[in-house]
Amino acid sequence: MKAKVYVTLKKGVLDPQGKAVMGALQSMDFSEVNDVRIGKFMELEINASSKEAEEARIKEMCEKLLANTVIENYRIEIE
Amino acid sequence: MKAKVYVTLKKGVLDPQGKAVMGALQSMDFSEVNDVRIGKFMELEINASSKEAEEARIKEMCEKLLANTVIENYRIEIE
Repeated sequence: MKAKVYVTLKKGVLDPQGKAVMGALQSMDFSEVNDVRIGKFMELEINASSKEAEEARIKEMCEKLLANTVIENYRIEIE
Repeated sequence: MKAKVYVTLKKGVLDPQGKAVMGALQSMDFSEVNDVRIGKFMELEINASSKEAEEARIKEMCEKLLANTVIENYRIEIE
């Protein structure tokens, strides 16, 4: 089974990478850009018996490794 | 307007970051994981008059800066 995990910085957490990309875009004449925030996007391929079991396991992976839950949110999408 | 951009490695391109995460997951007893591929996820906030205009501009940004089109694909979602 395939699953997608989106990890984004929580609101209020400074995003220097996003700020750098925004600065670069603005200096390239994309002055209409007001804000850029950058996160991670992971595609996992997993052996699982059911969608529910898979989602529970991926949640565990996110809590333990894939996301830093102090500063990041995550969202799981099962296909 | 808000837009989301997903940048992923093309098929066949080696993903050492994904391989490292997969190794870490497997050593943490998530042995059901067969593959991990990691991409980027960007949220842009843009001043644009129309959805079409916005999409065209973001496409330009992707081609010029946000994605390396030699090894990466990108997908744009306008909200």
